[in-house]
Amino acid sequence: METTPSNRSEREREKLEVVAGNGLLDRRAFLRGGAAFAAAMTGYTLVGSAAAEPLADDSWSREPGNLVPAYGVPSRFEKNVARTLSNPKGEPRTQHARTPHHLLNGTITPNGLHFVISHAGDADIDPEKHHLVIHGLVKRPLVFTLDALARYPMVSRMTFVECGGNSAPMFSKEPIQASVQALHGLASCAEWTGVPLSTLLEETGIDPRAKWLIAEGADSLALSRSVPLTKALDDAMIALYQNGERLMPGNGYPMRLLLPGWEGNMNVKFLRRLKLVEQPAMSYYETRTYSQILPGGKAYRFYFVQEVKSFITHPSPGLALKGPGYYEISGIAYSGNGRISKVMVSADGGQSWAQAALQGPVLSKAFARFRMPWRWDGGPAVLQSRAWDEGGNVQPTRAQFVAQRGETQKVPNVLAFPNQHYNSLTSWAIDGKGEVKHVYA
Amino acid sequence: METTPSNRSEREREKLEVVAGNGLLDRRAFLRGGAAFAAAMTGYTLVGSAAAEPLADDSWSREPGNLVPAYGVPSRFEKNVARTLSNPKGEPRTQHARTPHHLLNGTITPNGLHFVISHAGDADIDPEKHHLVIHGLVKRPLVFTLDALARYPMVSRMTFVECGGNSAPMFSKEPIQASVQALHGLASCAEWTGVPLSTLLEETGIDPRAKWLIAEGADSLALSRSVPLTKALDDAMIALYQNGERLMPGNGYPMRLLLPGWEGNMNVKFLRRLKLVEQPAMSYYETRTYSQILPGGKAYRFYFVQEVKSFITHPSPGLALKGPGYYEISGIAYSGNGRISKVMVSADGGQSWAQAALQGPVLSKAFARFRMPWRWDGGPAVLQSRAWDEGGNVQPTRAQFVAQRGETQKVPNVLAFPNQHYNSLTSWAIDGKGEVKHVYA
Repeated sequence: METTPSNRSEREREKLEVVAGNGLLDRRAFLRGGAAFAAAMTGYTLVGSAAAEPLADDSWSREPGNLVPAYGVPSRFEKNVARTLSNPKGEPRTQHARTPHHLLNGTITPNGLHFVISHAGDADIDPEKHHLVIHGLVKRPLVFTLDALARYPMVSRMTFVECGGNSAPMFSKEPIQASVQALHGLASCAEWTGVPLSTLLEETGIDPRAKWLIAEGADSLALSRSVPLTKALDDAMIALYQNGERLMPGNGYPMRLLLPGWEGNMNVKFLRRLKLVEQPAMSYYETRTYSQILPGGKAYRFYFVQEVKSFITHPSPGLALKGPGYYEISGIAYSGNGRISKVMVSADGGQSWAQAALQGPVLSKAFARFRMPWRWDGGPAVLQSRAWDEGGNVQPTRAQFVAQRGETQKVPNVLAFPNQHYNSLTSWAIDGKGEVKHVYA
Repeated sequence: METTPSNRSEREREKLEVVAGNGLLDRRAFLRGGAAFAAAMTGYTLVGSAAAEPLADDSWSREPGNLVPAYGVPSRFEKNVARTLSNPKGEPRTQHARTPHHLLNGTITPNGLHFVISHAGDADIDPEKHHLVIHGLVKRPLVFTLDALARYPMVSRMTFVECGGNSAPMFSKEPIQASVQALHGLASCAEWTGVPLSTLLEETGIDPRAKWLIAEGADSLALSRSVPLTKALDDAMIALYQNGERLMPGNGYPMRLLLPGWEGNMNVKFLRRLKLVEQPAMSYYETRTYSQILPGGKAYRFYFVQEVKSFITHPSPGLALKGPGYYEISGIAYSGNGRISKVMVSADGGQSWAQAALQGPVLSKAFARFRMPWRWDGGPAVLQSRAWDEGGNVQPTRAQFVAQRGETQKVPNVLAFPNQHYNSLTSWAIDGKGEVKHVYA
């Protein structure tokens, strides 16, 4: 090991690399090498080369392993990496399955862990018998089988899907103590492949009076939503594949409407019908569930885009820090309006900020992974992230957000109860023991 | 429906759009709309609007669906979308599990279907007890736990992994009748997330004498390979996550060496040791399995890069065409040397070619999905794809390839038996019934 002179220059370097309060480091520090990490790391052990050879053999190094299955599943040691279920017995009400963001990394949500909201269970559809009807204000109504759709030109795109009600616990006046999975687990990101809806609408032709289409699912709820024709002709897709394989049952097998960047329930699953019409249908889901009274008394409805948002997944509640030193602060940012342009991170509750690195490629309407090097000194810290999108939209602070959109009242009026399109900053407070709590800051 | 004048102009348009023999169409045709598809499509039905309402309800539209599980799995109707197993009882020899490319679409291989080659079964490793040792010609040998690695800066990248022996059946003098899964199923693509190896080597320091490292797995085979230090310091990663979740057991859980673009077995799974050395170890896998005698008598060894390659997945053997008309020809291209720059497609066995559309973003050392519109006239056709990479490398014809690399002899010399790094064109012949066969053309 080197002695004093080198240690001094290391301290000098670290000083230069601090870019914001409470230990945030220049994101380019990563590129200049890792020697600085070692000084405060406790998770590795120094060994003599002699001690390394031969390595001690654990049981798995001495015995044949398990059979390779036809369809792989995660290790038995990863049983905790699962979706949390709001209705695990499938009682006759909605089932939510939330993505465990704190246990994942990267930008893709694996299919087994993509969030699901199922109002009437996962429909068990025979793809040979399923059809998609496009009718109403079209020149020639058509019925498509899966075989027919397979012959059309397809496109693939990475995009997130987020429930309009994701993050709703943050409308609460007091910060609810819950994991990032419980707060933000109703958003996921996948590569979707299917047929552009515009192609199918060229097949049917469009009556000039048509301005909307009503999308209806084949599940027993027959969920229906009205979609402006402009979106249908823009980037809408009849999605058939999710991360390479056919859609998961909970994500709409055998086909769903995909409306990149728009609230989840409009991406109608088990899609069986698109009816072109002049006016929106004013269906249950658009008039009751997705219409809300704003503080000024106006209604919040037909607001489709999932606004720019970000949250830190590492560290986060349940992932305690293990002693002072270097950590990577990492999280997810996304916007229904396009690409994420910038994510800023604070370690002192918003007093000072530094720009995080974005993992490339940063794609439109997809999860972007941000990363920020941080040296925790063992004292209290409040971590926050804030995202900007290419449209110039910025994620609001909580104070800004609730001023416009309201928060849960102590005696809530059920009809006015706000629970949709929450997108303010999330704050994690870290105490001297490294425990992480949800706070408003 | 319109009558003669419009039909005539449609025929005129189609004429303009033909860009190569036997019905290949301008890839930009997709952008100009789908009316031309309808003329020859048989998979949809015209319906009167009245007939569409109400839609007939199948059983799944009348009954509650299935319980949403904590970890999602594909529909029971997709049981055939599985890996084929070379050794389904796990007898004491190598197990191969091949990716069903003809049943997938997009660019990502879902984790359940990523190819696996397991020489001694999938090791069942307790991540709490697993360590990574870096020693040998380093300044300070270190042992890393998973907790320690979790604190380092991470990166994510989409990259393919391909077995050096993928496509080996094509060394056969006669074209083997098999699916694209059997021929090319030992290549897959995922988003991998982990710690750059260069970061860890800065932690240990590198003795200037070190030129190679020996990577060793913790499975009972203790597979080891020698890796040039230049690659380790370039884009090598200690991968911890695969498509967002922890590595699958068959893909090296809890950690593997990832060497983007280099032959699969060097991406050592269950990684437990990296020893820096002056010379390659000449291990079993580099001296016996991955050294081969070339036609001129020289040896083919220490050749690591998976060369530029492409194959058509749709249509392909087992996916018969259902009557004349429009189809999308689609497939996968990739190169261990960087980005795919161009894919050309032929429908007449290589007499004429047209450029396919590449699904963006096209990423370095990752699967690129190519797509080409095609109007099948019902007659014989031979489909081929040919890829170029940004390094200027071009996929060879089969004749070019076997002239350099040899093919299987009728009485093979076992040691000279060529089965590695096959990358020539693949040809699918389509007969008048729409059946697809593997041919050499």
